[in-house]
Amino acid sequence: MNREDSMLTSHSTALRPYQDLAEIPHDDMANALRALAMDAVEKARSGHPGMPMGMADVATALFARFVTLDPARPDWPDRDRFILSAGHGSMLLYALNHLLGYADMGTDQLKSFRQLGAVTAGHPEHGHTLGVETTTGPLGQGLTTAVGMALAERMLNARFGDELVDHHTYVIAGDGCLMEGISHEAIDLAGHLKLSKLVVLWDDNGISIDGRTSLSTSTDQLARFAASGWKVMRVDGHAHHALTDALAEARASDRPVLIACRTTIGFGAPTKAGTEAVHGAPLGATEIEGARAALGWSHPPFEVPESVRAAFAAVAQRGREAREAWEKRLSASGRRADFEAAMEGDLPADFDEKLAAYKRELSQTAPKVATRKASEMALGVINRATDLTVGGSADLTHSNLTLTKGMVSVTPGNYAGRYLHYGIREHAMAAVMNGLALHRGSIPYGGTFMVFSDYARGAMRLSALMGQRVVYVLTHDSIGLGEDGPTHQPVEHLAMLRATPNLYVFRPADAVETLEAWQLALHAEGTPSVLALSRQNLPTFRIEHSEENLVGYGAYVARKPKRRRDVTLLATGSEVEIAFKGADLLAERGVDAAVVSMPCWELFERQSHEYRRAVLGTAPRVAVEAAARLGWDRWIGDRGRFVGMEGFGASGPAGDLYRHFNITPEAVVDATCDLLTCA
Amino acid sequence: MNREDSMLTSHSTALRPYQDLAEIPHDDMANALRALAMDAVEKARSGHPGMPMGMADVATALFARFVTLDPARPDWPDRDRFILSAGHGSMLLYALNHLLGYADMGTDQLKSFRQLGAVTAGHPEHGHTLGVETTTGPLGQGLTTAVGMALAERMLNARFGDELVDHHTYVIAGDGCLMEGISHEAIDLAGHLKLSKLVVLWDDNGISIDGRTSLSTSTDQLARFAASGWKVMRVDGHAHHALTDALAEARASDRPVLIACRTTIGFGAPTKAGTEAVHGAPLGATEIEGARAALGWSHPPFEVPESVRAAFAAVAQRGREAREAWEKRLSASGRRADFEAAMEGDLPADFDEKLAAYKRELSQTAPKVATRKASEMALGVINRATDLTVGGSADLTHSNLTLTKGMVSVTPGNYAGRYLHYGIREHAMAAVMNGLALHRGSIPYGGTFMVFSDYARGAMRLSALMGQRVVYVLTHDSIGLGEDGPTHQPVEHLAMLRATPNLYVFRPADAVETLEAWQLALHAEGTPSVLALSRQNLPTFRIEHSEENLVGYGAYVARKPKRRRDVTLLATGSEVEIAFKGADLLAERGVDAAVVSMPCWELFERQSHEYRRAVLGTAPRVAVEAAARLGWDRWIGDRGRFVGMEGFGASGPAGDLYRHFNITPEAVVDATCDLLTCA
Repeated sequence: MNREDSMLTSHSTALRPYQDLAEIPHDDMANALRALAMDAVEKARSGHPGMPMGMADVATALFARFVTLDPARPDWPDRDRFILSAGHGSMLLYALNHLLGYADMGTDQLKSFRQLGAVTAGHPEHGHTLGVETTTGPLGQGLTTAVGMALAERMLNARFGDELVDHHTYVIAGDGCLMEGISHEAIDLAGHLKLSKLVVLWDDNGISIDGRTSLSTSTDQLARFAASGWKVMRVDGHAHHALTDALAEARASDRPVLIACRTTIGFGAPTKAGTEAVHGAPLGATEIEGARAALGWSHPPFEVPESVRAAFAAVAQRGREAREAWEKRLSASGRRADFEAAMEGDLPADFDEKLAAYKRELSQTAPKVATRKASEMALGVINRATDLTVGGSADLTHSNLTLTKGMVSVTPGNYAGRYLHYGIREHAMAAVMNGLALHRGSIPYGGTFMVFSDYARGAMRLSALMGQRVVYVLTHDSIGLGEDGPTHQPVEHLAMLRATPNLYVFRPADAVETLEAWQLALHAEGTPSVLALSRQNLPTFRIEHSEENLVGYGAYVARKPKRRRDVTLLATGSEVEIAFKGADLLAERGVDAAVVSMPCWELFERQSHEYRRAVLGTAPRVAVEAAARLGWDRWIGDRGRFVGMEGFGASGPAGDLYRHFNITPEAVVDATCDLLTCA
Repeated sequence: MNREDSMLTSHSTALRPYQDLAEIPHDDMANALRALAMDAVEKARSGHPGMPMGMADVATALFARFVTLDPARPDWPDRDRFILSAGHGSMLLYALNHLLGYADMGTDQLKSFRQLGAVTAGHPEHGHTLGVETTTGPLGQGLTTAVGMALAERMLNARFGDELVDHHTYVIAGDGCLMEGISHEAIDLAGHLKLSKLVVLWDDNGISIDGRTSLSTSTDQLARFAASGWKVMRVDGHAHHALTDALAEARASDRPVLIACRTTIGFGAPTKAGTEAVHGAPLGATEIEGARAALGWSHPPFEVPESVRAAFAAVAQRGREAREAWEKRLSASGRRADFEAAMEGDLPADFDEKLAAYKRELSQTAPKVATRKASEMALGVINRATDLTVGGSADLTHSNLTLTKGMVSVTPGNYAGRYLHYGIREHAMAAVMNGLALHRGSIPYGGTFMVFSDYARGAMRLSALMGQRVVYVLTHDSIGLGEDGPTHQPVEHLAMLRATPNLYVFRPADAVETLEAWQLALHAEGTPSVLALSRQNLPTFRIEHSEENLVGYGAYVARKPKRRRDVTLLATGSEVEIAFKGADLLAERGVDAAVVSMPCWELFERQSHEYRRAVLGTAPRVAVEAAARLGWDRWIGDRGRFVGMEGFGASGPAGDLYRHFNITPEAVVDATCDLLTCA
């Protein structure tokens, strides 16, 4: 035991009880997890018993000696993070949390598994259930989000030291997580960054939904992870001591660790274990009876003997002691205020003032710049005003303009920077940003071309579902990107993003709106944001300083009609300039047009009926946006016209494309004169 | 040379000329490619010279002796497929095609690089330019599509033998392709399936846009590919003989092959070679002058000496001879008619008759089944009626119900089946289906849960952009999937898919509509289709047989009002039943409702104004769909009401969820009575 104990020693994690493995009632603890899982799935007549039963030994070995959590303080910052990436095995997590004593996870909840309103949702949902570090279910997301958490730990450690930040991130991943493409991005990035406190336990059971994994994969996962710089191990996932040894060794690694746990899916089920039949359906009464007999578990459904409860309580007690020791260190630390401010994620008191001062300057200087450039300028101010922001790009730094002066890059082994080179990995960038945000301690933003939000969709949706403050800097937001052509020109993406619940889609029209959008995004603690930004230069039309954040209204009258409102021109982003020019042309023809800039539909929807009616007006409306029409009918109404894209783009200079697709001031005039009598 | 020559021998590819490497004017050929690339980018003032200049030697070695194409017959079925996965290096492909003599690729087109209307688009676009096998640009897509092509080759070979189908698929991939997650899915699947005629040439130049690739990756790519069962080699990408040897060895492999070509990006550029500065911007006059001097290339821009043209013409001539020999074999083959029918992709003459007979049966038996089950039933008929279809699922076969009786699975080394276990790889499934469709010879369909269209978006968009007949079977299409909860419940996906140009989004409401949707999808030769299908059972309301395909109208009156139309209820899929029930309840309150089923908005948009007006009517409208509202305002109009989702779903039984989110017949009544006076 000496070698192992010395490896386990860490000032931040007390390992009592269970210095002696023989003290641990391992089989009973594991069987309690198995029984709760199969009973809950059976009662729900829905769910996935196979994974919890297969991984119960692994989870028991992990929690008995290693994971440090305090169920009474689920948000204690220096806790270990435990991520169930194979989220369909949610009953494993719920059974653990029940036995560890999380306040919301009573037996009644296990009995209400998968029922509306219960905390025991089909897949674990962050924010809905205590002790769920991230929402999982879409495979590969948990693994990649965990990379973000492990990175957050190292970055905060670089700022605040071992005393305040020193914890592990443990992941249980299944075959599906490792088949999904996002896993490559996660593995490559974690290996590159040498995230040595990340430990992935792979449920290597050889079974997926269609049958044996050999139906569809032949990859040697150990060799694959090793190729990306991971330490790799293989262990019998039902051998308590071997698992404990492997975990102890993993904690001493200087690289991220994969432990392949060879398991039997549905371990204990007499006829279904080891087959896909046990993956995603209740076992049935007979099979459960057989499993109880095979496992030697004689307790009725949902009943757990006191000895097992005590064993899990000891784990919780270890966590409580660790948390109390940490709190003493925090109290004694000179960095306490800084640390708490970072974890709270509060912007500095003078933050808005600094932005307001810069906004005034912008209105005065009225730069003609692309909104991606305006974003860089805004970030210059923002990144000086707060140290919460952590920037990055999926290898398009000089196009997205996400790196501001003085920002230092994070490099392997040196985590003191605040800029991330995510590589050509849009999906991982989004999931890692989710992990950074969930861990707390920073506000991540990351850039790519808007069209590649396609690649990041899976994780962007989770940003929205989990309500995380993550900012997507999506530049080159239309055919305005020009020569790169239709593969790079978003057409349907604004609609796709606007249709996503709980996501702010900002499409600012000039430098002032861009700054305002950034301000709103950074204040939106429960909502991720997209900034859709132009490649091409745009004039600043907001030349009159406004103390108010007008983008915060979602839409507003950017140009008032001279006398009466004959028509209302609605536009966003780069097309606001076209609307202005259209209004000028219309004036020549005796038509008095209002121009409404609509940088954020979601915020406009929230305004009062009166405000919206006043902005939209009662005159006919013409919308102009270099994107698909879908969604615009809500604003233009039955009589309205839309000037925009009807299909994919093309390759050519931006100006040529706008003319080719007839998204011009003249087209706005034509659409208007189709509705009204023009001179 | 003997060893090598024997390895090169293949009855289907003549290797004359250039049995003797010394005959090949390699450097001049490679420099011609370099010069055309840098000159075209310079003239366009836009583009990516670095990759073509770096990979010119590799491309020359590949084409000089190995690639068999006939530029005069770009669609010759047994040609080798050459895929430029690193699509930003499009000038490499255009320069090759120019020198090989493709009819559309004159010097004028090189001079119009990246200009509107030119075939020399910023990224290669299939269908826009001859000899572009697939559209590339979004990284990793070409590589994965190539896996589909290599698989198509093996599957057709299994049907038609070496005599008619025996060709290679060559890919040039960059660092970005290998960083993207989709590459893992592609590599894993190709290695598993032992696609030995797939050869990937990796442009290992160590540079990405942000700088050195060591900024963001440390993966040992050779070890990574080897872990997935590939043969791997490393070679100096500027060493003609070594490249030729490696390619010869690759062609003899029994596994897919990665050749890591160590290259210098922008080879020849005196100050910018080997740096990110040469990746994506014109070199400038001085640098180009220096490059010409360094390369010993004294010819003016766009001029290529006759000796070099002759060398490329010899490559084309070799292809022409191979094609002519193949045509003789085809003429002599007893399988000619079958082969041509497969390549044409024509459905059998009696196909529609068989479907009509089955439709009549469905209307008579009126089964109450989920539309995913109805899809399985339809596929049972379809897969018997034609052998063109190739099915599959991303490891959800028994949920998507995509496998019909008698379908045999493709397995490693045995390609005679017509069902594919794509594994948990939605993105690769979509890209591989693109490859199957582009290769020609089958109509691929593949299943996953609708919410995971998020993971496949990148490749689904390319199905639409390229106009490929690919069918996406997206089951579990709403909160109706129940207990799996919000991570698995699509909300915004219908809007996302409907916003995508050139994509049919079918959401059939019963077994008859499902069959009709399948019929339309299979006939849509230039448009991919989505079938959004329910998990839950739905009654058949189309109990009167219709010879016409009503889904083909996009929308139609499914229930006529009794006397006058007081209200029109619009619905799709599983909510049509709710609309019918709502109409019943409204009738009790003296309101006469028409119910309109809208299974395909895109097709409805194409109907005449009169037809659309007749269907939508002039009465107020209420829409019901268990999804986001975005897009519905087009149909409900200013006075309309929408009954649907306002945020994400929840975990619980489907019935509970419909009640919880208030998507019920009663809610339809309430919305209607908000508009009208109800009794």
